[in-house]
Amino acid sequence: MAKNSNSNHPGRFAYDGLDRVIHEKARLGIVTSLATHPGGLVFNDLKELCSLTDGNLSRHLQILSEAGMVQIWKGYKDNRPQTLCQLSALGRKRFLEYLSVLEGIVTDALPAASEPAAAKKLNEGWSPA
Amino acid sequence: MAKNSNSNHPGRFAYDGLDRVIHEKARLGIVTSLATHPGGLVFNDLKELCSLTDGNLSRHLQILSEAGMVQIWKGYKDNRPQTLCQLSALGRKRFLEYLSVLEGIVTDALPAASEPAAAKKLNEGWSPA
Repeated sequence: MAKNSNSNHPGRFAYDGLDRVIHEKARLGIVTSLATHPGGLVFNDLKELCSLTDGNLSRHLQILSEAGMVQIWKGYKDNRPQTLCQLSALGRKRFLEYLSVLEGIVTDALPAASEPAAAKKLNEGWSPA
Repeated sequence: MAKNSNSNHPGRFAYDGLDRVIHEKARLGIVTSLATHPGGLVFNDLKELCSLTDGNLSRHLQILSEAGMVQIWKGYKDNRPQTLCQLSALGRKRFLEYLSVLEGIVTDALPAASEPAAAKKLNEGWSPA
């Protein structure tokens, strides 16, 4: 059992810090890619790393850009016009906050979920809904 | 830098194992609550722990129940009719798989995102989109 797993105050498992802009699965991949590539990634490399289509990546980049978390640059690489995506300072800050919530969830849940035969038999008197 | 953060194969950041049934923010709270309470939780306690409304909790429990991840029981506690929610064996298994993906994300991202002044200056020739 995790140290705090018996703490049962209201909202204990609400995870308010779980930023919805980052939490969406595709955007989580995008933000993690960019965080591990501080020099930025060109659109096509980012698309491949995240296994996204052009349209999906564009849509999620727009959401991240509107939230001020990602900066989009236009320029040339290998003599071809390119789009470069980079995590902003704000994006990095919010991602760090998000990661600390994620760490808390793993700390909360992993020891409990790993216990063999953790499901207890119910007392008598309960029947399937 | 995390050990594997320079690995750049296609789909490296697609996080296919990130089970959408669990990943939704409210359901992640519900499943974590239930994982840390193997004897199950009655509806009202679960609602408070997750800071959800009756309607939201019902809706998410239905999705989890239809996926076979949560079992719902009817019965009496303190002489009042109650609904008891418990994580199923399948739910526990899928949650463990989910948690290992989550751990991987934290391992990938935390060292990189924590580096001070990690954002690199771009080379010349890039302009804001």
